[in-house]
Amino acid sequence: MARVCRFECGLDLVITLLLGVLALGYSYRGPAETSSAPWGYSGPVPEAVAKPRYHYKTLYFQQKIDHFGFWQNGTFMQRYLVGDEHFSAPGSPILFYTGNEGDISWFCDNTGFVWEAAEELGALVVFAEHRYYGQSLPFGNSSYSDVKFLQYLSSAQVLADYAVLIRHIKRSVAGARKSPAVAVGGSYGGMLAAWLRMKYPQSVVGAIAASAPIWRFSGLASCEGFAEVTTRTFNRSNPACAASVRRSWAAIDHLAISAGGLRFLETEFRLCASLTGLADVLALKAWLAETWSMVAMVDYPYPASFLQPLPAWPVKAICTHLTDPTLPDKDLVHHVASAVMVYYNYTGAVPCLNITQTATRSLGVTGWWYQSCTELAMPMCSNGKSDMFEDHPWDQEAFSAECQRQWGVRPRFDWPLVLYGGHDISAHSNIVFSNGLLDPWSAGGVLHSPTPSLVALIIPDGAHHADLRASNPLDPVSFRNVRRAELKAIRAWCGRHGPSSLHNRAFSKSWLHTSSI
Amino acid sequence: MARVCRFECGLDLVITLLLGVLALGYSYRGPAETSSAPWGYSGPVPEAVAKPRYHYKTLYFQQKIDHFGFWQNGTFMQRYLVGDEHFSAPGSPILFYTGNEGDISWFCDNTGFVWEAAEELGALVVFAEHRYYGQSLPFGNSSYSDVKFLQYLSSAQVLADYAVLIRHIKRSVAGARKSPAVAVGGSYGGMLAAWLRMKYPQSVVGAIAASAPIWRFSGLASCEGFAEVTTRTFNRSNPACAASVRRSWAAIDHLAISAGGLRFLETEFRLCASLTGLADVLALKAWLAETWSMVAMVDYPYPASFLQPLPAWPVKAICTHLTDPTLPDKDLVHHVASAVMVYYNYTGAVPCLNITQTATRSLGVTGWWYQSCTELAMPMCSNGKSDMFEDHPWDQEAFSAECQRQWGVRPRFDWPLVLYGGHDISAHSNIVFSNGLLDPWSAGGVLHSPTPSLVALIIPDGAHHADLRASNPLDPVSFRNVRRAELKAIRAWCGRHGPSSLHNRAFSKSWLHTSSI
Repeated sequence: MARVCRFECGLDLVITLLLGVLALGYSYRGPAETSSAPWGYSGPVPEAVAKPRYHYKTLYFQQKIDHFGFWQNGTFMQRYLVGDEHFSAPGSPILFYTGNEGDISWFCDNTGFVWEAAEELGALVVFAEHRYYGQSLPFGNSSYSDVKFLQYLSSAQVLADYAVLIRHIKRSVAGARKSPAVAVGGSYGGMLAAWLRMKYPQSVVGAIAASAPIWRFSGLASCEGFAEVTTRTFNRSNPACAASVRRSWAAIDHLAISAGGLRFLETEFRLCASLTGLADVLALKAWLAETWSMVAMVDYPYPASFLQPLPAWPVKAICTHLTDPTLPDKDLVHHVASAVMVYYNYTGAVPCLNITQTATRSLGVTGWWYQSCTELAMPMCSNGKSDMFEDHPWDQEAFSAECQRQWGVRPRFDWPLVLYGGHDISAHSNIVFSNGLLDPWSAGGVLHSPTPSLVALIIPDGAHHADLRASNPLDPVSFRNVRRAELKAIRAWCGRHGPSSLHNRAFSKSWLHTSSI
Repeated sequence: MARVCRFECGLDLVITLLLGVLALGYSYRGPAETSSAPWGYSGPVPEAVAKPRYHYKTLYFQQKIDHFGFWQNGTFMQRYLVGDEHFSAPGSPILFYTGNEGDISWFCDNTGFVWEAAEELGALVVFAEHRYYGQSLPFGNSSYSDVKFLQYLSSAQVLADYAVLIRHIKRSVAGARKSPAVAVGGSYGGMLAAWLRMKYPQSVVGAIAASAPIWRFSGLASCEGFAEVTTRTFNRSNPACAASVRRSWAAIDHLAISAGGLRFLETEFRLCASLTGLADVLALKAWLAETWSMVAMVDYPYPASFLQPLPAWPVKAICTHLTDPTLPDKDLVHHVASAVMVYYNYTGAVPCLNITQTATRSLGVTGWWYQSCTELAMPMCSNGKSDMFEDHPWDQEAFSAECQRQWGVRPRFDWPLVLYGGHDISAHSNIVFSNGLLDPWSAGGVLHSPTPSLVALIIPDGAHHADLRASNPLDPVSFRNVRRAELKAIRAWCGRHGPSSLHNRAFSKSWLHTSSI
């Protein structure tokens, strides 16, 4: 880690290190404009999805800045979105989305499952924004101005926000006082959904934790897992595809030793800026590696614009360009560049690609970076053998030192294991862990049911929290089955809560008309 | 509350307000030398019990001052006591005492059940000291010098300390790596034991929560309960006893209107200082009220020195002096004074009684006072009808204002309900809640089993956590039965944990040879 510039680097390369390490063990480049925190978009809301597809009110709740201490008695306004068009009978469920590291309206618009489930259940929909993201800034515009203001950015504070907010909603929404709440979340939001049920079981009767890598922490999973699943997803489309990627790193290195080779790389990848030395080449490779991971995450069966406007099955589309790993260096790189354009320029509207500009140094990225440097440090590595990436071992010490240098904090690698129980979660109940096997984050997920009430659901052909997306005619049957199982679980949890908690509506949505799982 | 001096009072009367409110709605006097936080001693260790009756090592563990934020990266040394003389087989249980608001060595020496159970189970004994008490001071001698240093004094931080310490013990004690830990605690420590199981179920397989008033918070129990149980305990000894106490307040008031009456009161109660006005008389009455509550708490069937050197069944001893509530004022007060001497001067060695000296303004009291002003505010009141005390309604606003004035904090009355679930604890498991019905704190306890694995055990003739005290030949059968049931629960929890976790020793202790409960 940080072998190139451990001490002399400025902010750009430190951002680089953390996001790089998070993604795949790369540590030498700034995040690309088009990407963000590894498991979801956390920058500004793209135009294309900013228009709400669902109807909701935007509300604000006065939260304590510090739930666990009392000296800091300040408050902030937490944003939350409420959709009540389906909520009719008193005591019907509340579907409570546990917001991730970003603008909640973006998650709201991209989590169609919650809206469709609400229609089925007659449920109230709530999307709660995570503190320090979007508009929910404990210290307003100063929240990121000094690290001292970030001391209240932790998952424990966030869970307390959610538990307090649920109490408020039950007391403030007519007919909701006796409503059972169910936590729903995807990715980091899925971790929060599961943890909310674990820590505040009286607040939520159960949790749907989609693509939630709660076992992605030190000592719980191999650090190679993320890279290996990415590789498997590429192999699934075409075995030559992963082999081509694996060989591309050396091809780029070979070209990079000459000025002519650097120009060739610039031209092929349509880079906005010149490659001027080793650091730039490393940045190019890291950018590519992150791209492949991102594509695996969003390998959905229909065209989508989750992270980028993409075709259906984008890994397959990319891999149509990568069919022969034995090509000479320049030919191979040419095809890699064609492949990468599927991700970055599917619409053909992008004039050039910028691999160093850190335009995503937004609140979302900064906040996530801090969280990764404190309690959510997730070891990542690749070895070039069981995966298609270069050999990047995990260097905990270097990671920790970089956090100390940048933030004055050190990651507490053991803390999430103590706080959330590590592998031993069997005392908890009523959680569904769903994972798509195409999704690199599945390597840190719960893939086998620990107990009858902690249920692992597998989506063999699913990418990152595919089940939480709106139903689509192109959904494979596995998506529909998992959503059906999730709805069944929600009904069971709420049914146990009390007789008035669920309507007995006939299943009407098409995705429910599938064989039971 | 604080009707006499809401704004003009100094520190003494503020201490008064809080301890008074905590005890019985009185609010006008300083704590007596001989008492302390209402549910246990938290001042210096008395000579009589300072000599350890059990064998243990005193160790220290480096804890984070702030578990939930990362900006404050300081640490402190948490004291814990380890007794390993019975711990033999690898994987045998750990009995982990969740320390209360005071010096842990005192609790260690007064919790014989843990030691006896350890002998039975071949268990390791650990007594963990609560941060901000005893020697476990996050900021050393400065810990109480400024309220800003108290921001890490909260039950959530304490539970995290305990979870982290248990992990450390499993890793540092030979043979303990796979040992199941069981939390044991009494009073506030019992609340912590239950909460530890609720919040960190992977840390402890179960919890014995003795006399733990987890439902003593706002909205969960009537504020009169404490006074009513105290009254019931007095009535049980002698119905005229409670009636005598009830009438004594007016008798004191009648006497206090004349200088001669005040002298009479001073003489009868052998007061060290003169009574000079209304405030002193109110202090006298509050001191008496607290005394009656204390006696009910320690109404053990054998002579004991838990809070004071006392005879067996001290309430009965006191009530032998209070048999006629119809006596004239002076005669009644004379008998009340004789009764109170049972508590304060059983040994005959006390020359005079001091009702105003705040000698217990020790760390324990100050810390508890702060905790009561933040998250552990427990409404207390009396009405003089269903109880034997004067009419003291609960005034939440005045209580809150006093906390704000003194500490710059306001109690968060709702927070413990959100954090620990209020009455809805059914999602949790493996907790025994034991309560003695003589104990005033039982009014805030769990008296009916919420689920088959959340078991309420009742000790009809038990006072405050009588079951946690060392076995005694004078123990009623109910004590032995409850201890037996607790041991059975511990065995069941540990047995489920793994086959190596328990010895199959024959029950040998006499208190186990009773009929099953």
